[in-house]
Amino acid sequence: MARTESGASSDPLTVLRGLPSGQRVEIRDASGHAWNGAIVPSHELSGSRIVSLKLESGYNVGVAIDASTAVRVVGAPPSARSEPVPAGRASVEGDPGGWITLLTTGGTIASRVDYETGGVRPVSDERDILAFYPELEGSGAVRVIPVFDRLSEDIGPADWLVLAQRVVDAFRAGARGVVIAHGTDTLGFTAAGLSFLLTDLPGPVVLVGAQRSPDRPSSDGPSNIEAAAAVARDRRLGEVVVVMHAGLSDDRFAVHRGTWVRKMHSSRRDAFESRNGPPLGSVHGGTVHLLPLVRPPSAGPPRVDGPIDENAGLLWFYPGLTVARARAFAAGVRGVVVAGTGLGHVRSELIDWVRSVTAEGVVVAMTTQCLEGGADPYVYATGRELLRAGALYLDDLLPETAYAKLVWALGHADDPGRIKALLTQDRAGEFLRRHRAEGEA
Amino acid sequence: MARTESGASSDPLTVLRGLPSGQRVEIRDASGHAWNGAIVPSHELSGSRIVSLKLESGYNVGVAIDASTAVRVVGAPPSARSEPVPAGRASVEGDPGGWITLLTTGGTIASRVDYETGGVRPVSDERDILAFYPELEGSGAVRVIPVFDRLSEDIGPADWLVLAQRVVDAFRAGARGVVIAHGTDTLGFTAAGLSFLLTDLPGPVVLVGAQRSPDRPSSDGPSNIEAAAAVARDRRLGEVVVVMHAGLSDDRFAVHRGTWVRKMHSSRRDAFESRNGPPLGSVHGGTVHLLPLVRPPSAGPPRVDGPIDENAGLLWFYPGLTVARARAFAAGVRGVVVAGTGLGHVRSELIDWVRSVTAEGVVVAMTTQCLEGGADPYVYATGRELLRAGALYLDDLLPETAYAKLVWALGHADDPGRIKALLTQDRAGEFLRRHRAEGEA
Repeated sequence: MARTESGASSDPLTVLRGLPSGQRVEIRDASGHAWNGAIVPSHELSGSRIVSLKLESGYNVGVAIDASTAVRVVGAPPSARSEPVPAGRASVEGDPGGWITLLTTGGTIASRVDYETGGVRPVSDERDILAFYPELEGSGAVRVIPVFDRLSEDIGPADWLVLAQRVVDAFRAGARGVVIAHGTDTLGFTAAGLSFLLTDLPGPVVLVGAQRSPDRPSSDGPSNIEAAAAVARDRRLGEVVVVMHAGLSDDRFAVHRGTWVRKMHSSRRDAFESRNGPPLGSVHGGTVHLLPLVRPPSAGPPRVDGPIDENAGLLWFYPGLTVARARAFAAGVRGVVVAGTGLGHVRSELIDWVRSVTAEGVVVAMTTQCLEGGADPYVYATGRELLRAGALYLDDLLPETAYAKLVWALGHADDPGRIKALLTQDRAGEFLRRHRAEGEA
Repeated sequence: MARTESGASSDPLTVLRGLPSGQRVEIRDASGHAWNGAIVPSHELSGSRIVSLKLESGYNVGVAIDASTAVRVVGAPPSARSEPVPAGRASVEGDPGGWITLLTTGGTIASRVDYETGGVRPVSDERDILAFYPELEGSGAVRVIPVFDRLSEDIGPADWLVLAQRVVDAFRAGARGVVIAHGTDTLGFTAAGLSFLLTDLPGPVVLVGAQRSPDRPSSDGPSNIEAAAAVARDRRLGEVVVVMHAGLSDDRFAVHRGTWVRKMHSSRRDAFESRNGPPLGSVHGGTVHLLPLVRPPSAGPPRVDGPIDENAGLLWFYPGLTVARARAFAAGVRGVVVAGTGLGHVRSELIDWVRSVTAEGVVVAMTTQCLEGGADPYVYATGRELLRAGALYLDDLLPETAYAKLVWALGHADDPGRIKALLTQDRAGEFLRRHRAEGEA
């Protein structure tokens, strides 16, 4: 039987389920092992007798509760320790450091394990999110605004526009910086999309995700979001970045430019890497270090530079790709990014396809599926022929970044020549040729 | 005026052009600077007065020749020093170390600069190839067999079958090992394709390429091909590997398993990387170092395990990919590899597409576009729904390797269940789960 502070006794599971998220407790099992931590929201299953605790270390554990478990409530209820933030509001006045806005979209960083299936599902309740991430408010006030409640594979270009508007709204309301909690699957795509859609940013826009859900042991969510908040408060930065683990330890984080970043591992915490450029900086011991090449905050009012046009494709070349298949894939598009091999090549018979679609006014933009180094039409005969067939070479843009830029550029012009001019102009620091040059012998 | 050893004098360019490829010469320009090296075959352009020399260091230079240039022929003609090898034949008898076969396919490793366009075009004459690579015969006899004369973006699955047959022919003729000189663009695809097509290999099959053509200064071709030849002579190895620079210096090379390797930079010499597994070994100072996990030579006779079926696709997911576009791309295929996000996901609406095509008997195989880590359907709801919709998860296979395996598997079975069974069985050491596990927290 459980004994609570009040001296009343009942089934320990009932006691625990009656306590608010964030309440500190000590749970002692029959063997005498004690767990000290805060109650974490978890999916209640009929029949399940597991309660999740966030330990002091930041790790979460699931503790099996039986009739012999002793429960002791430690300290005051969490409402007196950390006032839950109502939707879209926070105690932001009087904070000398200013406040930041957290936009949530779902994804692992705002998900919990579904014990029925063993999988992970997103949560949208911002109370749950702050209970998962009490450290978020440690360095200043945070306004939480749920935007979506989706795994990131369901976030696409139209959603980038919605997010961009929420970012602008947040800055106009006085936020010092914006954190966007986002699933990691398409986080790189969204970061690139926002890089092109947001202009004149007065502060940082920091996308952050987690590779492990916050109710799991060893979740990277808490430390990632704390690092992201530190970057969002930095007054030197006025661009879209991604903050994620820089290694397997919880004390070093990389700041990646939104147009250079890519998820390069399906499960590691340090899955994100900058390609064709260095990380812009790091967070270590709570201190943000930034390279001089970061884009500083803008004085002008932020705005969303829409619209976009999703009538575009991203076509990855492979040796068996036929003209018929390329043609079917790109039917009706206004533009297509090709991820070619090497310096930006496709098999010879596809060059005729490029010639025919560009003659119809379709923009064909070439990148390299190597994901590092540039696309360059001047080294091999194939490149020169593709150039003559009308392909546009986008140097060292990642295929994903080129796709995001194409969607943006198609929204800004009708004429293919104008679209190509927009694509080749540097807009968000996305071209960094000198790093490519280092790789040349 | 040039002075030759014979004392005759004439225009120095005429003298140089009259000398055989491989002839050692000293060229001294008007300023007194002298170049010592062997004449390298180069594209003769009317009006061009540039002669290419291979220096002792292995680097090539282009030397401008004018009327004041002094030319001195050094040593005997190359025919006395290194007998040119006739097509498909070499002095192989009496070599105690055994001989190797070099199959050439074109690509940068067998290309030279076209000075008219500034680009690079393949050469197929094996005399030129041996003049480019005199070091190839340094450690033993080599039989040169030209197979194709193409840049690698034009080498596809049907060509893998041809190459596989030439490899088997070479082993049956008594070769100790086989080197395949191949363009780097699709070298990873071909390496994967041959890994599945070749069985019971009695020795190494080593694909090698170059990122700089052999008539250019700082070509990586000579050092790569020398390292590849050393690996092809190694008696511990009976699988398909790729040998390329392991860094920017010319003295360290990596041996990559054919199913784990990918071109990860469009221009660096060390462009190739093993993903989801370590390099199988290295070549340093001419010595081949191999990990114990290499597949040893087989005692059985080698054979080509065809046929293949190219009626397959490789579809790279991106956030704006619509059902209509996926459906059009995959029309008529018997199988499609999807490079999904993260652990192998696509947007929700595509799950219905997967369900409908698998119901029609199409094999849908899921991989991750992260290129490292595995695809796993059991972590997120999306994965479980894709699994229920009929998708097959291919763990940590690279999308490119999965495509090569699919083309092979489709040639070996009609029944989707049997094709899926072939895809999930390890055949060439392509699955290495423990390396994925290391990335898990």
